[in-house]
Amino acid sequence: MQRKDGQMYAPVGAKNLVCNPGEFTIGVIGLDHGHIYGMCNGLVEAGAMVTHVYDPDQEKLAAFVKAFPSAKVASSEAAIFDNPGIDLVATAAIPSDRSGIITKALMSGKHAFSDKPAMTNLDQLEAVRSAVELSGKRFGIYFSERLHVEAAGFADNLIAEGFIGKVVQTIVLGPHRLNKGSRPAWFFQKERFGGILTDIGSHQIDQILHYGNAKHARVLASKVANYHNPDHPDFEDFGDASLLCDNGSSGYFRVDWFTADGLRAWGDGRTIILGTEGHIELRKYVDLGRSDTPNMVYMANGKGEFCYDANNTVGFPFFGRFIRDCLDGTEFAISQQYTLHIMELALTAQKLATRIKEEGV
Amino acid sequence: MQRKDGQMYAPVGAKNLVCNPGEFTIGVIGLDHGHIYGMCNGLVEAGAMVTHVYDPDQEKLAAFVKAFPSAKVASSEAAIFDNPGIDLVATAAIPSDRSGIITKALMSGKHAFSDKPAMTNLDQLEAVRSAVELSGKRFGIYFSERLHVEAAGFADNLIAEGFIGKVVQTIVLGPHRLNKGSRPAWFFQKERFGGILTDIGSHQIDQILHYGNAKHARVLASKVANYHNPDHPDFEDFGDASLLCDNGSSGYFRVDWFTADGLRAWGDGRTIILGTEGHIELRKYVDLGRSDTPNMVYMANGKGEFCYDANNTVGFPFFGRFIRDCLDGTEFAISQQYTLHIMELALTAQKLATRIKEEGV
Repeated sequence: MQRKDGQMYAPVGAKNLVCNPGEFTIGVIGLDHGHIYGMCNGLVEAGAMVTHVYDPDQEKLAAFVKAFPSAKVASSEAAIFDNPGIDLVATAAIPSDRSGIITKALMSGKHAFSDKPAMTNLDQLEAVRSAVELSGKRFGIYFSERLHVEAAGFADNLIAEGFIGKVVQTIVLGPHRLNKGSRPAWFFQKERFGGILTDIGSHQIDQILHYGNAKHARVLASKVANYHNPDHPDFEDFGDASLLCDNGSSGYFRVDWFTADGLRAWGDGRTIILGTEGHIELRKYVDLGRSDTPNMVYMANGKGEFCYDANNTVGFPFFGRFIRDCLDGTEFAISQQYTLHIMELALTAQKLATRIKEEGV
Repeated sequence: MQRKDGQMYAPVGAKNLVCNPGEFTIGVIGLDHGHIYGMCNGLVEAGAMVTHVYDPDQEKLAAFVKAFPSAKVASSEAAIFDNPGIDLVATAAIPSDRSGIITKALMSGKHAFSDKPAMTNLDQLEAVRSAVELSGKRFGIYFSERLHVEAAGFADNLIAEGFIGKVVQTIVLGPHRLNKGSRPAWFFQKERFGGILTDIGSHQIDQILHYGNAKHARVLASKVANYHNPDHPDFEDFGDASLLCDNGSSGYFRVDWFTADGLRAWGDGRTIILGTEGHIELRKYVDLGRSDTPNMVYMANGKGEFCYDANNTVGFPFFGRFIRDCLDGTEFAISQQYTLHIMELALTAQKLATRIKEEGV
């Protein structure tokens, strides 16, 4: 299911059940982005069951039910919201439609799990924030570039062991393959995808605050451009931002749609974490020019240089923790306020971004 | 002469003489930074001769004369400025003292070649700019992280061949080893070293404009910090900046003094060049966790992934070109206005920088 183009990104991990069969059920609404497979895979590996799915597109439905045979096709979105047997609504609808699904799910007494970006403007964010507060239900975002990457979890352990001292900065590079011909119309419409910093950038901001051990940050500068896709004037194929966290750590990220066809993965995604006593580099999906093995982790510190293969090491503990958080009312997987703040930063970076003139390059 | 700590960075290249013996002579003033060895090495390999040297420190003088036996010890700075047989003054004095030496050299009818940073504030920059204009002599800066790195020149060729399309962004990471115990007092005094963005940052800005094929840029955001050296409150061990070039390409760089003792080089210096058709990564001084071979160049484009060893390939053509520019009044090595603008950007980034509170991390 893990396609070279990344559109169906869905890593397979070990089963690690945190609940009994049928104890945590998922209703899926919106299959517009293939990330829904990764989202459901991760939760199912941790013990959840996908019981229902709704999407207006019959072809997408058929493919999804084939991958998740436990899922029955629901007759409408409402049939999922109104079903008291469903614990969580998962959505990978068109980005601009997600917040509506999330708020309805929360206000129907269900937890919600959305592909990123979970919203495309600050009004939508406030609506979700209100629904979270009113409902008391949990809302999570699939920040796949950390939560579904073993190298990322492996780095957590290296940092926790103190191997690079205190983290002072995190740089994240998030290049993606465009696959222009196979993308739906909404993919190029800014009102619907929300802008490149909102969309891909939210992943990177999550990593900056996570590794920097920060709760809050502010955007110092950001920019976006459409360098190379003049046939879609609304599209953005490049973006970056510089952040400063409340605890003094900082971050920079770049996102783009320039992955070349010759790369053996959908993007040469990197995370470079600078500590007071060393640094760590994650080569997440490919080791450029060396190997197509993903999840390679490099480190230097006072003791030397190190190279680790993080595949089949730490797994993807987020999913089981998130299920337990929903069931127990705890907050071990990820902080609710943090999740909302990451999207606030992404939306703010997008709003403040300097738009580079296309004719420039 | 290439020490592991980078303080005496002086790569050795092939001889590639561009002038006759004695046709281009160098008088050296100021041996405070070991970069003077790299500066002189590069020029001597291209045919120059170091004929005179002055520094108040006898120990530094003795070491220098041992490395460059053609150099006679001059009795004073003035003896060098007043010597009509000297064509160029090279200086690696304390940064805040360099612009005075440069302007005197130019106004004495000599060309000038300075270690970076060539000045530590904008007033000094304007003084040098005036002296350049008044004298008609050439002024160059030793941007060693590009001009004296074979991987950097190798990338020029890849870009010129069109292998990655048009360059849209350059990211430069310039970590350095602190070697705290062996540094002189001025190294930690901001008035004298000029700030981390002025000093190390000027290198990185040069690369951003160079690879982006830009003549001008502006600083969008910059920050500096002293995270880990509270015993030197004036010092800066971290800095970064985001730039936007006039032609639409952009850049980001980070500089720091956090290279861990276990790294097999003085810094894990990288340059990542993003083009519309591919990307290039330079691992300049070490290939982290893989090999201590410097100058490894990685690339992905439409045709695949590539890994090149750039050692003993393109050499260091800057030095011969710079000598010819001085002798012929041409401008092939580097543009005079460009050199001044790079320092203007570095000084501006420093001036505008957000200072991160030390107690943060």
